[in-house]
Amino acid sequence: LSTRLTIAVDLMSGDLGPRSALPAALTFAQANPDTSLLLVGDSSLIPAQLPVNTQWISTSQIVTMEDRPAQALRHKQDSSMWHSIVAVADGRADACVSAGNTGALMAMGKFQLKTFPGIDRPAICKAVPTSKGSCVVLDLGANVDCSSEQLVQFALMGSVLASTSGVLSPSVGLLNIGSEEVKGNEQIRFAASLLDANEQINYQGYVEGDGIFSGAVDVVVCDGFVGNVALKVSEGVARLLTDYLIDAMGASWFGRLSGQIAKPLLRKWHMKFDPARYNGASFLGLQGVVVKSHGSADEKGFGCALAVARDQAFNEIPQKINQQLADCLL
Amino acid sequence: LSTRLTIAVDLMSGDLGPRSALPAALTFAQANPDTSLLLVGDSSLIPAQLPVNTQWISTSQIVTMEDRPAQALRHKQDSSMWHSIVAVADGRADACVSAGNTGALMAMGKFQLKTFPGIDRPAICKAVPTSKGSCVVLDLGANVDCSSEQLVQFALMGSVLASTSGVLSPSVGLLNIGSEEVKGNEQIRFAASLLDANEQINYQGYVEGDGIFSGAVDVVVCDGFVGNVALKVSEGVARLLTDYLIDAMGASWFGRLSGQIAKPLLRKWHMKFDPARYNGASFLGLQGVVVKSHGSADEKGFGCALAVARDQAFNEIPQKINQQLADCLL
Repeated sequence: LSTRLTIAVDLMSGDLGPRSALPAALTFAQANPDTSLLLVGDSSLIPAQLPVNTQWISTSQIVTMEDRPAQALRHKQDSSMWHSIVAVADGRADACVSAGNTGALMAMGKFQLKTFPGIDRPAICKAVPTSKGSCVVLDLGANVDCSSEQLVQFALMGSVLASTSGVLSPSVGLLNIGSEEVKGNEQIRFAASLLDANEQINYQGYVEGDGIFSGAVDVVVCDGFVGNVALKVSEGVARLLTDYLIDAMGASWFGRLSGQIAKPLLRKWHMKFDPARYNGASFLGLQGVVVKSHGSADEKGFGCALAVARDQAFNEIPQKINQQLADCLL
Repeated sequence: LSTRLTIAVDLMSGDLGPRSALPAALTFAQANPDTSLLLVGDSSLIPAQLPVNTQWISTSQIVTMEDRPAQALRHKQDSSMWHSIVAVADGRADACVSAGNTGALMAMGKFQLKTFPGIDRPAICKAVPTSKGSCVVLDLGANVDCSSEQLVQFALMGSVLASTSGVLSPSVGLLNIGSEEVKGNEQIRFAASLLDANEQINYQGYVEGDGIFSGAVDVVVCDGFVGNVALKVSEGVARLLTDYLIDAMGASWFGRLSGQIAKPLLRKWHMKFDPARYNGASFLGLQGVVVKSHGSADEKGFGCALAVARDQAFNEIPQKINQQLADCLL
C-alpha cells in the first residue's frame, strides 16, 4: 500500500464545487485502481457506496472565489481546500487538486508546504496545445514582476516538467517582443545571458507570442503578468473563433446542413484544442504537488486535472525540481 | 484640389515590397478617385499608364527588415520610407503607409513629424476583431515600460480613434490580471486611479486578456510589451486553429467531402477574422498619420492599410488627439 499514489481532492471549491469534482473523482477512482483518493468535503455528500480506493475527510468550510487569500488562510482552516493541502503536507497524500480561488490555494500551499530554498513564490505552470504537441508555459500569474534569476528558475522547473513527457533535453524560449529596436527590457536581456550560460538549460533564445503555439520550443518562460495575459488571450481567441463557427452553422439552412455534415470534423477539431484537455495548472516550486483545476471546469476537465496531479506525483516533479535548483545554486 | 486627401505609399519596404504595395496602390487609386496617391519607389517600376490621381516620387534606397533604426535614419535618406514620411512632414501628403521595418518607421516618423507635446514616444495602435465588432488596442510594442501617465495618454488617443468609427463615448479598459491577490503592479493601479478621475475618458475598469476579444470595451490600454505579446498570441492561436481545421479537411475522404460542403461557411469564417481585414497599425502621438502595414501583408492586406490611413487623415485623428492631450494637460 505504501507504493500506491494518493491524491487529495478538494470537492467543494470552484464554480461548480462537488457537481464536477465529485463525479470526476469517483470516475477517476474506478478507472485508476492503483491510485487512492482522499475526498475532502461536506459529509452530507458521501455517496452510499464509495469505491474501495477512496477515503473521505469531512470538512465544514468552503473557500469562495471572493475570499481574500490572507483571510482564507486565517479563518478557513476547516475548509476542503485547507485539508486537501494538509494531507499533502503530512504525507497522507502525494498531490492535491482544487478548482478554488487561486490566491487562497497559493497562500495555503505556501504556508503548509513551503517553497524550495531560493524560491520566493511558486510559478503557475500549464501545458498549452501547439501545432506539434504541447508547450509548458510559466509563470501564468503568480509573480507579477520577475527578476532575471526568477526567470532562470522558471526555465529549470519548466524543463523538469517537460522532460517527464518524453522530451530528452527540452528546448527553452524566453518570451519577448521582436518588432522594436529595444527588444525587451533589462531583466529579459540579463535573463537571456544567464540562460545562455546555464548548462542545465537547453536555451534556444527569444520567442514571440505566436511562437508559443507554433511549437518552436518545449518550454516558454515569462513573467506572471505577461503569461497570464497570453493564456487568457489564447482562451479568448479560441472562444471567439469557435463561437463564430457555431453561429455561422446555425444562421442559414445551408449553414445548418453543412454544419451537420462537417460535425464530426468540427468535433475532432474542438477536442484537439478543448480547454478541458489542457486543464490542470501546477504551482512549481512548492515542496509538494498542488494542481489548480480551472474554476469553471466540468467533470471531464476536473478529471484531466486529477491526471496531471497523478503524473506529477508519479514523476516526483517536486523532488526533481529541488535537485535541479540545488545543482543550479552550487 | 486642396480638399482632396493625399496618401504617400512606400512601395519598396516589407517582405513583398512592390509586389503587394504597387498593385494595392493602383487598385486603391482607381477605386478612390477622390483620393490622390504619391507612389514612392524605384523609377524602374513606373507602369506604362498611371491613374490620373497618382504621382511618382523616385527613390534609390530601401530600408530592409535587418536595418537598425538609427542607421536607417542616418544612411537611408533617399529611401522610399524616408520620402514617404517627408511627404507628410512637408504637407504634400496627409498620411503615409509603409510595410517596412517598424523600428525604422518609428525613428523616421519621430524625426520628421515629431510627437505632440507630452508624448515621448508614439503608441502603436490597431483594431482587432471581437465578438461584437472590433476593439482598439494600444500600445502594441513601441513602449516596453510605461508610466501610469503614459497609459492615460494611450486611453485618450485610443478613445479618439474609436470614436471616429461611430462610438459616441468609447469605453476604455485597462489590461490586467485578475486571478491573483496582487492584481497588477503599482503602475497599473495608479493608472486606474488616474483614469477613474479623468472626465475625458469613459473608464470601465480592468479587463483580462480574454476581455479584448469578447468586446467588453471599445479600447484596451496596456504597455507595449504586454500588448505585443497579446497581439502575437492572438495571431498564433488563430493560425493554429485554422491550420488544424484545414488539415483535418484534407486527412480523409470524409474530411475532404465535408470540407468541400462546408467551404463557403469556412470561407465566411476565415474572412471575418482575416488578418488582412485588420491590417494597418498606426503610430498615435505623431503629428501626422503614419500607418504600418504588416511586413508580410499581401495586396488585399496592403489595401486595408491604405484605407486605414485614408480614414485617419479624413477624420483628422492627429489634430483631435492634440486637442484631447491639450485639454488633459490643462
